[in-house]
Amino acid sequence: MSRWASALPNREELAEAKRKAIIREAARVFSRRGHGSSLDDVAERLGVSKAALYRYVDSKQDLLYACHLEAMEIARESMDRGEAKGRTGLEKIRIGMADYLREMIGAMGVPVLILEENALTGKQASDIMRLRDDFETRMRHLVEEGITDGSIVPVNPKIAIFMLLGAVHWVTKWYSPEGAWSADEVADALMELATRGFAAEPAAKLGATLHR
Amino acid sequence: MSRWASALPNREELAEAKRKAIIREAARVFSRRGHGSSLDDVAERLGVSKAALYRYVDSKQDLLYACHLEAMEIARESMDRGEAKGRTGLEKIRIGMADYLREMIGAMGVPVLILEENALTGKQASDIMRLRDDFETRMRHLVEEGITDGSIVPVNPKIAIFMLLGAVHWVTKWYSPEGAWSADEVADALMELATRGFAAEPAAKLGATLHR
Repeated sequence: MSRWASALPNREELAEAKRKAIIREAARVFSRRGHGSSLDDVAERLGVSKAALYRYVDSKQDLLYACHLEAMEIARESMDRGEAKGRTGLEKIRIGMADYLREMIGAMGVPVLILEENALTGKQASDIMRLRDDFETRMRHLVEEGITDGSIVPVNPKIAIFMLLGAVHWVTKWYSPEGAWSADEVADALMELATRGFAAEPAAKLGATLHR
Repeated sequence: MSRWASALPNREELAEAKRKAIIREAARVFSRRGHGSSLDDVAERLGVSKAALYRYVDSKQDLLYACHLEAMEIARESMDRGEAKGRTGLEKIRIGMADYLREMIGAMGVPVLILEENALTGKQASDIMRLRDDFETRMRHLVEEGITDGSIVPVNPKIAIFMLLGAVHWVTKWYSPEGAWSADEVADALMELATRGFAAEPAAKLGATLHR
């Protein structure tokens, strides 16, 4: 196989890419129209038939679950990047969370985490709950790392994380991608402010575009 | 009328007190069991008959609306106290918002603001929306006051308020009155952290009990 051929996506990769696109569009539908939206709504929005949709998902529950998994995957990857780029606990959290928010309100339209929570049951619900617990535990450890390395003021890690997650999730309620602010601007401005709350040496001036 | 007689509540005042008690208990039911809860659920929780409940409210919609009005009233009164006690824009916001959160998770169990939003329609929905807009405008003005008086770092007032409101409203998702933390402790710790994010001279140490 030449290097060009290997750079092209194979059939499985194409199917996976299509499935991802469906999930992201569905997440947008669920978060704008509520988790009461039907598979028909999603199919209509995608401009495909319901039959075509069924090639990729088994049911609405399945699709909702996939949206949540995708959101948790975005969270995980964002924190990976935050941990790779940040030099201190504070930087890791700030970079990771800004990245997460940017991805959520950029690519996915608006965060889907709140809306669908009650719509999942059984193993699907407990799976998502466990992923969230893992995510929150990871965040708390970063706060503790920051306290140890001196970048974060001694603080209750749970309260600090709840404050951050609140700021992030509330974005569903007020952000519109059609509004004046880009996802980038909102993510930077919001996370600069929220993490400054527990910075050991808070900057005297805010740097994010929306604050200037 | 002697001063003792005038200190006793009259019949109207008693009825109003009873109505308030019902609203607060209903708010607790709606926020714990979801806004799908019926008037029967509320009556059961109050230990009264549905007929008795109908003496005070006309319908479930009416009760939900009353819960929201009550929440907005608590918000308004809290900000009144914050404005009276605080010397700067920053202090007014911090005192007012901590007071609001304390009232909501103390007296009302958990905040009801998020859960019922979609359950209101027509004039009731627009009434609550207007009260919320007024509340947010008032908060933004306090941020601007703080920037002017030097207690708040130059900041985008909308972002600052969204960050605060997110931290407050997310409390519904994690706070339990049966847990280890009192409403007082949570309100103080959360608001100290969130408002420190835009304080012009953030304290080097956090003072709230949960942070020590």
